Amino acid sequence: MKSAHIPRATIQRLAVYVQVLETLLQEGDSVISSDGLARACGVNPSQIRKDLAYFGEFGVRGVGYYVQDLLTAIKQSLGIDRTWNVALVGVGNLGRALLRHGIFRRRGFILVGAFDCDPFKIGEEVAGLEVVCSRRLKEKVSELEIEIGIITTPPERAQRAANYLIEAGVRGIVNFAPARISVPENVAVEYVDFMHHIFSVAFNISINQSKGLS
Amino acid sequence: MKSAHIPRATIQRLAVYVQVLETLLQEGDSVISSDGLARACGVNPSQIRKDLAYFGEFGVRGVGYYVQDLLTAIKQSLGIDRTWNVALVGVGNLGRALLRHGIFRRRGFILVGAFDCDPFKIGEEVAGLEVVCSRRLKEKVSELEIEIGIITTPPERAQRAANYLIEAGVRGIVNFAPARISVPENVAVEYVDFMHHIFSVAFNISINQSKGLS
Repeated sequence: MKSAHIPRATIQRLAVYVQVLETLLQEGDSVISSDGLARACGVNPSQIRKDLAYFGEFGVRGVGYYVQDLLTAIKQSLGIDRTWNVALVGVGNLGRALLRHGIFRRRGFILVGAFDCDPFKIGEEVAGLEVVCSRRLKEKVSELEIEIGIITTPPERAQRAANYLIEAGVRGIVNFAPARISVPENVAVEYVDFMHHIFSVAFNISINQSKGLS
Repeated sequence: MKSAHIPRATIQRLAVYVQVLETLLQEGDSVISSDGLARACGVNPSQIRKDLAYFGEFGVRGVGYYVQDLLTAIKQSLGIDRTWNVALVGVGNLGRALLRHGIFRRRGFILVGAFDCDPFKIGEEVAGLEVVCSRRLKEKVSELEIEIGIITTPPERAQRAANYLIEAGVRGIVNFAPARISVPENVAVEYVDFMHHIFSVAFNISINQSKGLS
């Protein structure tokens, strides 16, 4: 069922669907109407039906969706029905916060290694992990079976961190550093860019004010 | 020059252009070719020309772009050529990391208030700010001229934090909590969702593996 042709925008929305479906399960809801799911996810019903159609026939006429089945199917399609071992490079304020953040583990992404090149940080324990020198990534990636790297270095060190990860055999990177990085074609990169969200909010406030909406 | 018709995807890319242009300025580059800018931003040249066309005629034939002029124009259009006062609600690990993160101030978003409802956190000083009870948001938003709120609470408290911010008159929210929030039409909301990025990386690694690319 896994398809390379699922559009990027659909994948973004799937993450929201996973979040909402998991909350429903926790609250003991086993069935949800397609309108209810759409409302909870903040998208329109026709969009949700279109997105879910990539994974097969899920809606049941007069019932809606079975929450657990739908969640399982989405997770299988995204390849997140198993756990992934993750390394974090850059143990600053943001890196520490992410190491301590429960959400990665809850969603199956296990932070198994913390790396930094600062000699004052190496050997320190953060969230149960000992900080290891970034130069040892290659050895550790193989030992700990790490598949994904998270970069939380200052921007000027992001490329070097990416190079270490790629040389070590990591094929997917989530970059929180405010810098573009170059990677080979076979490496998947995503940028978590706070600033575009805050820019967008500022822009929309200005627009709403000029429309007299506020 | 400000336009309500700039597409959302363009605004996302503008944040990258701002990042790259500021780095160029710091490095002393006053001019960049449109191909060079496209490469540095990781987009194709025709896309960048199309995006920048929303702000007027900037490219100079045979020269490219004047870095400072382009940066100023983009910032004016986004409404980020001035400073914005920002409140953060939820002083946990992630909240603390963001309060200490220099990038907001460098880009003109000044964190002027930190709020939490935990009595053990109220009164504590984080990054030079005293943590204040979330119930006092209304008074503080007016006193400190806060226009944007950042939510870093646990997911189950995100809606309450949003309600406090909106009652206090805040018209733009950046939500880092993994939960959807309901807001009136005149309030701009953006979600910073780590998980969709890490899902996307996992998905793309799986796709690349099935294509034999890794």
